[in-house]
Amino acid sequence: MTDETPSFEARLKCDAQAVESLLATLLGPVPLENEIARPAVLLDAMRHGVLNGGKRLRPFLVAESTALLHGDAGAALRVGAALECVHCYSLVHDDLPAMDDDELRRGQPTVHIAFDEATAILAGDSLLTYAFDIIAAPETPLSDRQKTGLVLALARASGHGGMAGGQALDLAAERTAPDEAGIVTLQAMKTGALIRFACEAGAIIADASVDDRRRLRAFGDKIGLAFQLADDLLDLTADAKAMGKATGKDAARGKGTLVALHGQSWAERELERLVAEAEGLLAPYGARSTILAETARFIANRRS
Amino acid sequence: MTDETPSFEARLKCDAQAVESLLATLLGPVPLENEIARPAVLLDAMRHGVLNGGKRLRPFLVAESTALLHGDAGAALRVGAALECVHCYSLVHDDLPAMDDDELRRGQPTVHIAFDEATAILAGDSLLTYAFDIIAAPETPLSDRQKTGLVLALARASGHGGMAGGQALDLAAERTAPDEAGIVTLQAMKTGALIRFACEAGAIIADASVDDRRRLRAFGDKIGLAFQLADDLLDLTADAKAMGKATGKDAARGKGTLVALHGQSWAERELERLVAEAEGLLAPYGARSTILAETARFIANRRS
Repeated sequence: MTDETPSFEARLKCDAQAVESLLATLLGPVPLENEIARPAVLLDAMRHGVLNGGKRLRPFLVAESTALLHGDAGAALRVGAALECVHCYSLVHDDLPAMDDDELRRGQPTVHIAFDEATAILAGDSLLTYAFDIIAAPETPLSDRQKTGLVLALARASGHGGMAGGQALDLAAERTAPDEAGIVTLQAMKTGALIRFACEAGAIIADASVDDRRRLRAFGDKIGLAFQLADDLLDLTADAKAMGKATGKDAARGKGTLVALHGQSWAERELERLVAEAEGLLAPYGARSTILAETARFIANRRS
Repeated sequence: MTDETPSFEARLKCDAQAVESLLATLLGPVPLENEIARPAVLLDAMRHGVLNGGKRLRPFLVAESTALLHGDAGAALRVGAALECVHCYSLVHDDLPAMDDDELRRGQPTVHIAFDEATAILAGDSLLTYAFDIIAAPETPLSDRQKTGLVLALARASGHGGMAGGQALDLAAERTAPDEAGIVTLQAMKTGALIRFACEAGAIIADASVDDRRRLRAFGDKIGLAFQLADDLLDLTADAKAMGKATGKDAARGKGTLVALHGQSWAERELERLVAEAEGLLAPYGARSTILAETARFIANRRS
C-alpha cells in the first residue's frame, strides 16, 4: 500500500503489537506496590496463557470505539489489556480437563499441558484478578468515576450474569439441548457479553453521552452475534490446522448452534443482515466510523 | 450476660448473620442491570460455596476497623461481603481435585462434590468476579475514589502478588520444602494478604489519614501472622471433627510450617508476642479499639 491510510489489517496488527507489548510489561517479574512477591512459575503460566500472538480483537474494539468518540488512546490500551486478561483467563479455564479438555490452543500446548492443572487454575484466577488491578491502577489515565464504571461493566460482562454464566449454560447444553431462545441466551452470555463490553468501554473511556453509550452497546451486541455465527460456521467448515485448535467438536458433542438449526445459507444471510445493522448504528458518526464498520465485516467474514 | 455491651462472641455472631443475610440477597436469582441471566445451577453452586455458616472473620475485621475510624457501617458490610466472596472462591478452587482435593468443608461436601468439577471452577470464577461488582455497584455508599482504592487493594491482595501467588508457592512447597523466609512469604501471601486487606479496607471506607491506613495495615499484618500460626497449631493438634475438615494434612504432605520448624511452645510464645504488638498498634485509639484487640486475641486462641 502506498496510500497514507493504513489498511484495516495493518491497523489491527499494529494495535495487537501494542497490546502484546503492554501485556508483556504488565506481566513482568517485579512486584508492584502492595504486592508481596510474584512467584515465577505462576507468572510464566500467566504469560503462556496471554502472550500467544492472538488477534487481540477485543482490545482493538476498545481502541477503535474510544477513538470514534475522541477518548484517550493510552487509557483504551490499558483497558484493552485488562479485557484481554479476562478473555485469556476464560480460555485457560475453558481448556481444563474438567471443562472442554483441550490440549492445543493456537497450535501451542494449553496452560495445563505446558504446566499442570493446579497452576492453570491459579493462572486463570490471577489473570481475572489482574484485570481489575490494571483498570483501577493509578497508571490508567481515567477518573475514578470512569474506573468504577469500567470495573462494574467488566464484572457484569464476565461474571455469572455474563461470560461465566454462559459457560455454565454451555456445560448444561451438552446434557440438555437448548431450544433456539436458549442458544441465543447462551451465546449472548458466553461470547457476546465481552464483545459488547469492549464497545461500551470506548464510550466510558471517552466520557460519551448516554446516547453514544447505548449506541455502542447495541453495535457490540450485533457484532457479538455475528462473531458467534461466524464461529459456528467455522466450526462446521474449517479444518483444525487453520484454527490452531480442535474443530468440529461442537457438532460431535451434539451442541446446538443456530447454524445447525437453520443451515449454512441462512447463517450467511443472517451475518450480512447483522453487519448491515451494525453499520447502520454507526451512521451518525460518518467517515470516522469506517474502521469499526470494517471490523464488523472482518468479524463476519473471518476464516480463523 | 446482663451487661448492655454485647460480648465479643455475640458481636461476632451478630455481624456474621448480617453478612450471611446480605450474601443471600446478593446471590438471589434475579439478574441485575446489564446481566443477561443467572443460570440456576451456577448460582446454586455459588450459594453452596458461600452460604455455609462461616465465622465471617474477614467481614468482621472490615466492619470493626471501619467502626474504629468512624466509617459507614453499610459500606463496610458490602465490602465485607465482597471480601467473603473472594475468600470463599479461594476455598472452592483450593478444594478441587487438582489442588488440595478435599471432599469436606465445614462438615459439608465441597462444591465439586455437591455439583461437579466444571461447575466448581465456574462458581469460583464467578464469586471472584462478583466481589468487584459488589464494591463498584451504585448500592455501595462510597465515593468513586474510595471504590477505586478498594478495587485496587483487593485485587493486589488476592492476585498473583497476593493470595493466588501464595497458593502457587504452597503447591511448590509440596515438592521443594521452603526455608523459613520462604514459609513466611508463602503465608503472608496465602492467608496474610486478605486479612491485611480486611483491616486496611476500614481505613479506606472511613477515608482515614495515611497514618491510620498504615497503622491498620500493620495491625492486619500482625493478626495475619497470628492467624496462620494458630492454624498450624490447630492442624497439628485438633481432630477432624472440631475443624469440620481433614486435618494433619500439612504434616502428612511434608509441608513446612513455622510450628514444625520451631516447635509448639515457641509458636505459643510467638502468638502472645504478635497479639501484644497488634494491641500496641491500637493504643492511640484507646477504648474504641477494644473489639479489634479482642479479635486479635480470638484469632490467636481459636480452636476451630
